[in-house]
Amino acid sequence: MFITDNFLLQSEAAIRLYHGYANDMPIIDYHCHLSPKEVAENRQFENLSQIWLAGDHYKWRAMRAAGVDEKYITGDASDWEKFQAWAETVPKTLRNPLYHWTHLELKRPFGITKQLSPDTAKEIWNECNAKLQTPEFSARGIMKQMNVELVCTTDDPIDDLRWHKQYEQWRAASGELRVPRMLPTFRPDKALPSMFGNQSYNEYLDKLGATAGVEIKSLDDLLEALKRRHDYFHEIGGRLSDHGFTWFSYENNKEANSQEFAANTFRLLRDNTKNVMSLRYVNYVIQYHCGVLDAERGWTMQLHIGAIRNNNTRMFEKLGADAGYDSICDDYQLAGSLQSFFSHLDKEEKLPQTIVYNLNPVYNELIATMLGNFQGRVASENGNPQLATRNSLLPSKMQFGSGWWFLDQKDGMEKQLNCLSNLGLLSQFVGMLTDSRSFLSYTRHEYFRRILCNLLGNEMETGLLPNDVEMVGKMVQDICYNNAKNYFGF
Amino acid sequence: MFITDNFLLQSEAAIRLYHGYANDMPIIDYHCHLSPKEVAENRQFENLSQIWLAGDHYKWRAMRAAGVDEKYITGDASDWEKFQAWAETVPKTLRNPLYHWTHLELKRPFGITKQLSPDTAKEIWNECNAKLQTPEFSARGIMKQMNVELVCTTDDPIDDLRWHKQYEQWRAASGELRVPRMLPTFRPDKALPSMFGNQSYNEYLDKLGATAGVEIKSLDDLLEALKRRHDYFHEIGGRLSDHGFTWFSYENNKEANSQEFAANTFRLLRDNTKNVMSLRYVNYVIQYHCGVLDAERGWTMQLHIGAIRNNNTRMFEKLGADAGYDSICDDYQLAGSLQSFFSHLDKEEKLPQTIVYNLNPVYNELIATMLGNFQGRVASENGNPQLATRNSLLPSKMQFGSGWWFLDQKDGMEKQLNCLSNLGLLSQFVGMLTDSRSFLSYTRHEYFRRILCNLLGNEMETGLLPNDVEMVGKMVQDICYNNAKNYFGF
Amino acid sequence: MFITDNFLLQSEAAIRLYHGYANDMPIIDYHCHLSPKEVAENRQFENLSQIWLAGDHYKWRAMRAAGVDEKYITGDASDWEKFQAWAETVPKTLRNPLYHWTHLELKRPFGITKQLSPDTAKEIWNECNAKLQTPEFSARGIMKQMNVELVCTTDDPIDDLRWHKQYEQWRAASGELRVPRMLPTFRPDKALPSMFGNQSYNEYLDKLGATAGVEIKSLDDLLEALKRRHDYFHEIGGRLSDHGFTWFSYENNKEANSQEFAANTFRLLRDNTKNVMSLRYVNYVIQYHCGVLDAERGWTMQLHIGAIRNNNTRMFEKLGADAGYDSICDDYQLAGSLQSFFSHLDKEEKLPQTIVYNLNPVYNELIATMLGNFQGRVASENGNPQLATRNSLLPSKMQFGSGWWFLDQKDGMEKQLNCLSNLGLLSQFVGMLTDSRSFLSYTRHEYFRRILCNLLGNEMETGLLPNDVEMVGKMVQDICYNNAKNYFGF
Repeated sequence: MFITDNFLLQSEAAIRLYHGYANDMPIIDYHCHLSPKEVAENRQFENLSQIWLAGDHYKWRAMRAAGVDEKYITGDASDWEKFQAWAETVPKTLRNPLYHWTHLELKRPFGITKQLSPDTAKEIWNECNAKLQTPEFSARGIMKQMNVELVCTTDDPIDDLRWHKQYEQWRAASGELRVPRMLPTFRPDKALPSMFGNQSYNEYLDKLGATAGVEIKSLDDLLEALKRRHDYFHEIGGRLSDHGFTWFSYENNKEANSQEFAANTFRLLRDNTKNVMSLRYVNYVIQYHCGVLDAERGWTMQLHIGAIRNNNTRMFEKLGADAGYDSICDDYQLAGSLQSFFSHLDKEEKLPQTIVYNLNPVYNELIATMLGNFQGRVASENGNPQLATRNSLLPSKMQFGSGWWFLDQKDGMEKQLNCLSNLGLLSQFVGMLTDSRSFLSYTRHEYFRRILCNLLGNEMETGLLPNDVEMVGKMVQDICYNNAKNYFGF
Repeated sequence: MFITDNFLLQSEAAIRLYHGYANDMPIIDYHCHLSPKEVAENRQFENLSQIWLAGDHYKWRAMRAAGVDEKYITGDASDWEKFQAWAETVPKTLRNPLYHWTHLELKRPFGITKQLSPDTAKEIWNECNAKLQTPEFSARGIMKQMNVELVCTTDDPIDDLRWHKQYEQWRAASGELRVPRMLPTFRPDKALPSMFGNQSYNEYLDKLGATAGVEIKSLDDLLEALKRRHDYFHEIGGRLSDHGFTWFSYENNKEANSQEFAANTFRLLRDNTKNVMSLRYVNYVIQYHCGVLDAERGWTMQLHIGAIRNNNTRMFEKLGADAGYDSICDDYQLAGSLQSFFSHLDKEEKLPQTIVYNLNPVYNELIATMLGNFQGRVASENGNPQLATRNSLLPSKMQFGSGWWFLDQKDGMEKQLNCLSNLGLLSQFVGMLTDSRSFLSYTRHEYFRRILCNLLGNEMETGLLPNDVEMVGKMVQDICYNNAKNYFGF
Repeated sequence: MFITDNFLLQSEAAIRLYHGYANDMPIIDYHCHLSPKEVAENRQFENLSQIWLAGDHYKWRAMRAAGVDEKYITGDASDWEKFQAWAETVPKTLRNPLYHWTHLELKRPFGITKQLSPDTAKEIWNECNAKLQTPEFSARGIMKQMNVELVCTTDDPIDDLRWHKQYEQWRAASGELRVPRMLPTFRPDKALPSMFGNQSYNEYLDKLGATAGVEIKSLDDLLEALKRRHDYFHEIGGRLSDHGFTWFSYENNKEANSQEFAANTFRLLRDNTKNVMSLRYVNYVIQYHCGVLDAERGWTMQLHIGAIRNNNTRMFEKLGADAGYDSICDDYQLAGSLQSFFSHLDKEEKLPQTIVYNLNPVYNELIATMLGNFQGRVASENGNPQLATRNSLLPSKMQFGSGWWFLDQKDGMEKQLNCLSNLGLLSQFVGMLTDSRSFLSYTRHEYFRRILCNLLGNEMETGLLPNDVEMVGKMVQDICYNNAKNYFGF
């Protein structure tokens, strides 16, 4: 058996921490990309390819690197053929996180301990498919098996959130204990103009305006529409926003200019004028406004930084976005950008509690130290009296998020944990999230917890940490669950 | 007991190296920020908060991240209340270097082996405060306990160095063996114009001119004033300079232009003219001149690079500089900048022996290899005959400094040691320094020595190094003491 | 004895992998800088300094850092004196890869197990020199001892490749089994204009034109000349190109402009006009063309990126290039540059199979993920029918090359292996190469294999990999030999 009870736990102390403290904690999955519709409708998946391979660009990239024809990845091959191609690829992924993830996910929830390969493919396919027809393996069945307490999906401001409402009605009516909550997250990326032309941008703004009941002619109209949608998300239970900024645009000395320049730029965009000179200021104004909305509502702002997307032009034209052609970025003057964005919000008493997820590991130390400059104060201290009690002196208001995307593996997670430990306070960390499109990804939390307990346990045994399992175990439970529970204020 | 005799020593060989070779070596603390006045007056500290918390922005950052109100950090709370707040924070710093440093410093010099927490706070406060009233725990008492042989403080060119002179007179008169020397370090950062306006710059230049006996009208006047103060520091025993450059400004091809441009720019600055176009050349000319001064005197030039300071505007306006709002920088075209600065000095036979301290760990490899390009030759070979004997063929003239500031922890020090080992010669390294404002920081040398011995001992046992404790022990002693002694020529 | 049989192998599984799977695999050294003439003439080296120190700028840098006078490095000291100076330096290189390499190379092929130091210098000098006079220690004798199957040298397009032809004739005639093949590699760096003036560039183009039988007046003429030489290299057996690009110059939106701009720029260069505005486009056009040549022939394109060369101006003027004054570069907007270059070639179906070697370790993750965007397709699918069978669905067409130059040491190689494992497929890696000028460097393959087996073996024992020595051993053999054999199609 590859995934043993003590998988990744290399010392007695690590074993005690994991089994004694981490293993039983519920899951708060505060950032994911699950389909709210599939949760609300409690989807029953047709087969293992549907629930496991469809949409999983991690696996697609590995298959491409193994020389699998695109037909068996995103093409018109049958689900079984695609699964076969994946089974052939798995033994080639030794030392890649996919080898671990694959066997963790087969073990839980499916209870399969064999290693996937061409030899075992048919047997595993049949066994999983049979289980997938049972209620325990529906979307919600799996969430229950995995001890999920709450999930936050990721949603566009124009989304009507009907599935969140429908699900919440069912949940309230069901009277069942331990049915997870599902809350929306406000992700307004499309409200930022990009260099790829303003036709689709204007179409988006029209929809946003219609949804919000605002005719969007000026930049101020846009900000008002975003505010209304933010309010609506808040009503439905949203408490986080999420942003895929590729750059920040603020320059300290040009604040006054930028407001006017931004307003003018926006008018040009709205008129479909070609050759708009710079999107920096308009972008900045929207980014800043989103921060303010979060601060005023006591929300958490999530920033995902460092990705360069859709790098393969030929395949982008064929498959569109999110098809496994993204990578890690450099060259974005990060220290100055983060500093000016945070300091501007902070100076106006409008810096919300914030989580920064970083895709390029070389920026870990820079980010961890920059976040440390904005701890210890919350917007609500001067703004919103009803939030003051909860928020004042919130520990580690500025959070360095867990290893993201390409870094969501043992090495990347250890680097993030070590960096946060050295340059901030690990004990106050809000911990893991799946960031996943798949209902089978909850063992990422198990993976994270094993890695965390292993780091801590090994250091207890080598004298780098006090050999006090209660003290360290308490910290483990905080990172796995309590800190998130206290931080987000759901 | 958390800090045992073999703390951080994870192999028998490491234990033998540390206790047999490292532990007894005296300390040459060639870079720190101690107050010369407190040394000269042999300050007796009122209580543990005064000697331990006041001015320690590492602890302040941790307290802010733990959610402590600023009142208990830099505010008007009592010393005991501040200590309580720190005691509450300590258990939350598990895995942060503060947890190690705190207990190392309680053990030495105080002899306390309990862990600091709210439960033990009162007891530790009382015991330490009692000891702080005894002669063994005065400023100089602590230095004696810690086996300090020499310290170099950090001083502005306008400083009259009276405390250094007074202390040296006392020292010469005392006749005591093992009384540490105290030498000044020339830190002319304020002589470089910055973008923050030239009024304070001109005020500084007026003072500098008055101190040096030079009326500073032109850039050449400034250079002359700096030379005179450099001479004065040399007389008092100074043998190092120190620079907090945030950028280097040289461009190879514009040397001729830059001199004239710099002279003109300087005149504009001096006239309080607004809108000076570029400070690059004037900065570069001063930086270059400082290098030349060091080379001609056989001094060591220290460069501290990679910090971005005072990032939180609101708190900067409230607390001023050095309050714990600094962080790590990117984006400064480091390879080209270092190359052109060093190569220019080198070509003119004016490159002094140099130590580069780096704040962003991602530049470690770049720096280590760049320094390797300028080894093996000293300015004095062609200039100053009386220095030739000592300096010619100085081993590792260009030094990669020990882990600095945020990197002054186990992970950061190991990265520096590994990088230097792989890309240069560890055996020639001048080793550790405290860089500290506190008389309690000397256990940083112990921390460094344990980490060094641990790295080496583990590799002896796994066959990566010869299992020859004398050979490796000799290297340990060189790095802890002998190399610094030979390198600086105090 | 320092280099034992189990050197670097820290677990039983590692020992089994190395001795059971890695040790006996032949060497395909697909990139080196050996002299084809010395191979063809089967040079017998005069003494150990000639074969070991001459041209070895790794050793030169260490000697300079140890304070050795240049006379004993590149100066007029005798070979024995230079060897003495090296023997004095060796004990100072503890923890530097030179300490390992030195003793690996003394053990194989010389059979010496003593450590080199001033005490053993004379003895080792005599013993090695005696052996160097025997046929087993000629250039080809050593290659035979080291089980070398094939080497690819690095050659300028204007090279007539006479030594390759002469050697191949001898090899064919010899009838011996296991005589290594020697193939040329096309390295057209000098065909790219640089900022260092165009006189030497034009002289080079004249020679290139004469060799290719093309009068080079226009950029198209240059491209034609390169194509003819590429054809010629192909005839002689060349299957790889190699490029030392310091930057890529493509901008997506200006493709049309750039062609014309490049043509004009080239004409100005050819006319020796001063002040050519930008070399970006002309450079890009040549770089792109070289990629197309490789794609159309089914060759492998090698890119060596991240070096900044000849940083010490004084020593460059004295010793010229490749004298140990190079280092690691930052600041070259790598993500965007690689993306646009690869995506442009890929879109035109002209992206050849490619190996990227990286000199700055902080770009490892960026590169590994960027390469993943261009897997799974080969130019030949749409172009060259006779290549389709071999090339279609080539596994890991885009390869992340082994640790290069300063990173060709345990730490650098482990970082590359870990990064490739986490972000790509280690199992498809084409493995190690020497990149060396010396016939004594073949133990670099041994070094790499021990490090690889150690990583894998340790993970088998700690449960990170399946404890299946056959499965993992198969992967070891693929990485050591089989993958390269399949990938290059020699």
